[in-house]
Amino acid sequence: MIKTALKTRAYAAQKPGDTLKPFEIERREPTATDVLIRIKFCGVCHSDVHQVKDEWGGARFPMVPGHEITGVVEKVGDQVSRFKPGDRVGVGCLVDSCKECHSCKAGLEQYCEDRPVLTYNDVELDGKTPTLGGYSNFITVRERFVVNIPDSLPLDKAAPLLCAGITTYSPLVHWQAGPGKSVAVVGMGGLGHMAVKLAHAMGAKVTVISRSLNKKKDAEAMGADGYVATADPQAVEKAQNQFDLIINTVSSAADMNTYLGMLKRDGVMVLVGAPNESLPVSPFALIPKRKTLAGSTIGGMPETQEMLDFCGQHQLGADIEVITIDKINEAYERLLKSDVRYRFVIDMASLQEEA
Amino acid sequence: MIKTALKTRAYAAQKPGDTLKPFEIERREPTATDVLIRIKFCGVCHSDVHQVKDEWGGARFPMVPGHEITGVVEKVGDQVSRFKPGDRVGVGCLVDSCKECHSCKAGLEQYCEDRPVLTYNDVELDGKTPTLGGYSNFITVRERFVVNIPDSLPLDKAAPLLCAGITTYSPLVHWQAGPGKSVAVVGMGGLGHMAVKLAHAMGAKVTVISRSLNKKKDAEAMGADGYVATADPQAVEKAQNQFDLIINTVSSAADMNTYLGMLKRDGVMVLVGAPNESLPVSPFALIPKRKTLAGSTIGGMPETQEMLDFCGQHQLGADIEVITIDKINEAYERLLKSDVRYRFVIDMASLQEEA
Repeated sequence: MIKTALKTRAYAAQKPGDTLKPFEIERREPTATDVLIRIKFCGVCHSDVHQVKDEWGGARFPMVPGHEITGVVEKVGDQVSRFKPGDRVGVGCLVDSCKECHSCKAGLEQYCEDRPVLTYNDVELDGKTPTLGGYSNFITVRERFVVNIPDSLPLDKAAPLLCAGITTYSPLVHWQAGPGKSVAVVGMGGLGHMAVKLAHAMGAKVTVISRSLNKKKDAEAMGADGYVATADPQAVEKAQNQFDLIINTVSSAADMNTYLGMLKRDGVMVLVGAPNESLPVSPFALIPKRKTLAGSTIGGMPETQEMLDFCGQHQLGADIEVITIDKINEAYERLLKSDVRYRFVIDMASLQEEA
Repeated sequence: MIKTALKTRAYAAQKPGDTLKPFEIERREPTATDVLIRIKFCGVCHSDVHQVKDEWGGARFPMVPGHEITGVVEKVGDQVSRFKPGDRVGVGCLVDSCKECHSCKAGLEQYCEDRPVLTYNDVELDGKTPTLGGYSNFITVRERFVVNIPDSLPLDKAAPLLCAGITTYSPLVHWQAGPGKSVAVVGMGGLGHMAVKLAHAMGAKVTVISRSLNKKKDAEAMGADGYVATADPQAVEKAQNQFDLIINTVSSAADMNTYLGMLKRDGVMVLVGAPNESLPVSPFALIPKRKTLAGSTIGGMPETQEMLDFCGQHQLGADIEVITIDKINEAYERLLKSDVRYRFVIDMASLQEEA
């Protein structure tokens, strides 16, 4: 086990499906290459809820969720060169990787050929020490996995960029969203609303695909040029053969082939949301126009910094509802009902005060 | 209806699932832009069997199958510039398209935004005249949809190139098979054996994925560097994370996620075989290494000529079993049992003699 020394307050689930409650954890004393961060804000990702409920299997408890972390550097190790105390920084879904494979060497740590170490619900490369996430006052993270938050972004609105932002930015860049491209975003949640803002800022024509018209006004305010309410069969029919790229943040099994039908020839639909179920894909939805169904997950460290710089330049933060930590269980319930516009962010000062 | 005038012998199914029997059909008198072809050979594609059985729905009867046609030009219209009587030519799956859309203008007639007109089991753009395929002595085809067969290729071995060849060549080129790339081919049938030969000739490292070891020797003779028998769980395990590109000619639902697991990061599996069923794709088979599942169908006319020229240069024809037309129903039964190495080709002289 890695030697731990710094006690810090956190919120944890003790077993699958449990509510989150106050819990004391330890962080390691920063080594030469570590950064100790005082956490200011932590976003609440849908995957936090999945994992607390152990819906993807193999969950580890006690679990401290949270991988949309922003804060201020408290202390750095001797060999840390990119950060100093007082710097505004972020930590996303990754805290380590093998650093030696071709993916790591390409800055694609999220696709590490060994395994990326996730910020929580995982173990360090020693195979033993559990990782514990950002619903906490402090975290110790290797320099490579810490990013700068541009001064133009407030730390609360920046927090969701560390997962929701990079998860949508990476496929938009990889599949070349930009001027002249028609991009659709399925689902206007935490990921979806960031995809709309990012694709618009990249110069693409953006269409939101959502069940009802409820979020149309918001979508337009974020830069959407079009809106398809899937409850309206005529709107769905009209959207056939329209898009170069679809960022699907919902990935519901029932709608896969409908959305594939909305792609133009050579169009790509990218899954960034991961349901538990297999998706029934009709070969005839792919073959006749050489369409593609792809997956993508978060981004590597260089691209995460690039995304933050892009957001800083375009003043793009998430639309958030800031909560105190004692409201987290209620927030999970509301999240399951999509009752948030568009991301809960925990003000971690509330944990210090409470304890 | 297009005016027809030239009577010709053919073999047709009169209703779904019927055996094929001799039948007289008419071809149109060549217009200014038409080429009249005396058919010498016609390959037997698996899709012929699907369509005679109406397994994809909407089949039209009487049906004359056959879209792997080679022959000799008999007569050309006034405006035909690329062909003259006596030329060795081929016709594949397409006989018309709108010719005006961006796909047609890009030479991708197979992805025509109106609709590509298929060589059989379809109707002409007039919406009425049925198309009838190559199990026949003559066919009249628009110049644009006729290709040259290089002198170095015999007409019998060249026939399957018109579907099996181009269907595998096109995705190999589109997804950049070549030196330094590791390409797997699922299924060693009509399409699969051509994929092996083509990928090898392009300089890629080629692995065949097949149920048993039965075809290993053949695969190696065709240029395969590796062979995975899926009946061996250890071989399957060893093949994880190995390929840049998989050409899947089988697309059986049970194996989709297994094959996706054999792709490297950013790898692509292309479906070129079309089963009737939906394929259960696990999002977790795509997301963690940014993998892609794509579809592809045949190729456009410029690419079909390019493929034939490539095959001419590399002396690549199909491995075939030549049959007389009266053996066609037996051939269908053997095809369903994969009892052919690797493509039946009908010698159309046998139809003239019989009638």
